[in-house]
Amino acid sequence: MQIIETIYEMQQKVLSLKKQSLQIGFVPTMGYLHEGHLSLIKKSKSENDITVISIFVNPLQFGPKEDLSTYPRDFERDYQLAMNEGVDFLFYPSVSEMYPIEPSVLVTVTDRTDVLCGKSRPGHFDGVATVLTKLFHIILPDKAYFGLKDAQQVAVVDGLINDFHFPIELVPVETIREEDGLAKSSRNVFLTENERREAPFLYKSLLLAKQKIVLGEQENNQIVSFMKTYIQENTSGVVDYIEIYSYPQLKPVTGLEQKLIIALAVKFSKARLIDNIIIQLNK
Amino acid sequence: MQIIETIYEMQQKVLSLKKQSLQIGFVPTMGYLHEGHLSLIKKSKSENDITVISIFVNPLQFGPKEDLSTYPRDFERDYQLAMNEGVDFLFYPSVSEMYPIEPSVLVTVTDRTDVLCGKSRPGHFDGVATVLTKLFHIILPDKAYFGLKDAQQVAVVDGLINDFHFPIELVPVETIREEDGLAKSSRNVFLTENERREAPFLYKSLLLAKQKIVLGEQENNQIVSFMKTYIQENTSGVVDYIEIYSYPQLKPVTGLEQKLIIALAVKFSKARLIDNIIIQLNK
Repeated sequence: MQIIETIYEMQQKVLSLKKQSLQIGFVPTMGYLHEGHLSLIKKSKSENDITVISIFVNPLQFGPKEDLSTYPRDFERDYQLAMNEGVDFLFYPSVSEMYPIEPSVLVTVTDRTDVLCGKSRPGHFDGVATVLTKLFHIILPDKAYFGLKDAQQVAVVDGLINDFHFPIELVPVETIREEDGLAKSSRNVFLTENERREAPFLYKSLLLAKQKIVLGEQENNQIVSFMKTYIQENTSGVVDYIEIYSYPQLKPVTGLEQKLIIALAVKFSKARLIDNIIIQLNK
Repeated sequence: MQIIETIYEMQQKVLSLKKQSLQIGFVPTMGYLHEGHLSLIKKSKSENDITVISIFVNPLQFGPKEDLSTYPRDFERDYQLAMNEGVDFLFYPSVSEMYPIEPSVLVTVTDRTDVLCGKSRPGHFDGVATVLTKLFHIILPDKAYFGLKDAQQVAVVDGLINDFHFPIELVPVETIREEDGLAKSSRNVFLTENERREAPFLYKSLLLAKQKIVLGEQENNQIVSFMKTYIQENTSGVVDYIEIYSYPQLKPVTGLEQKLIIALAVKFSKARLIDNIIIQLNK
């Protein structure tokens, strides 16, 4: 595995790989890799000749109240994990390499952002879309891998790639779960023992809601209020939101959708957990 | 010459050309081709295997007071001109092909826009940068050609390509002039006979200003006021602006620059003419 720290070297490298008709898979990350990232890497390895991952904690996507400086980092561990997975290139630029001067162009995301977690993070997805636009041009991948744990991010990237016609295939990858169904997350360690026992009920609530929809329930208010009650009765968490939208458009459901998302965020004492389920309807 | 009207077909075509290691030159236009465009095409032909031009009147770069509907169009003539120059592909999408739905991502230009003509056209360069981001991904050129007549546009495109790391070389092309020095423009036909005789003094004022700078004049106010007087004495036009900046940064001159631009806009009775000169200083 080769570590590359400059944009120029990375871009030259992929341009020469592409001249050899090698297909490139790309997994963008902010580091502190966990099993979710590793599943993206594994999928990229199985579908491409070359797998590039990036580790870059992007200041542009942090709000003024979100603490960029305490975002967890452990490069040595990330390096070992990436190498063990057989990553070919690790792109690891500094902030001054990615933003040498005040940026003179930015990507603004005007849709799919004012719902779910995006509602409380204004500007977050502008930062995500801007850094991805840069990374997509530096890595020039054929396929890019994103985890469905953050389904709203996948929806925004879908809009970015489609609207700007990037010659890139977006590959959304299923959320990795514990045996009891809890979505894996680095935040799970902040759960108390008791909360950890309760947490699988979040996914259970999603599965029950899915069942209702598949069986014909069309009243979303009914489903949301059922889920709220179910989570309140089975956990000590406080529901932040439970929302149902078309996917990936993230618009209110009209009954004509092929695909829906049910997404939730629940606050426990020291961790806010998110999870979601995407339902393909056969209409 | 092949006309292509869909994004999908155009992108597939260039992807297959690139697999054959053919180098692609791209000349984006809004049609109504004149000698300026043809000089860009000629340059692209001489430097690439394949030359693609686009004809697309981009609604996104027109302000609410600028009349998109009366923008001149003559596809038959453009087609003939492009074919005569040996263009390989003419990309000619409809508005609904380029903007099928309300765009969910836009490029915002945060620098180089609040001076020169950009000052009076808020949002114009956002529209330019957004459509170019789309076109660059559809055509995937190795080199893109822009005329220096609109030097501010070249500066904005330079920022776009550099900040977003497009793997594209920007090729700025010198302004084409009449024998008497007047910059060629489709607007020149709106000059009266008398104004047409006066108009070359705009370029003359730029050449005289250049001479002063090369000879050591550092007081930009002096140069601007000299040019203003010179234009007032020799023409019936009204000076809209005369400005001197670093190039392509378009920042006030500090004396440390390698490159300067002197740019002017002058209003005649029925035509507003712009011109500029870029000065490479040997420091």
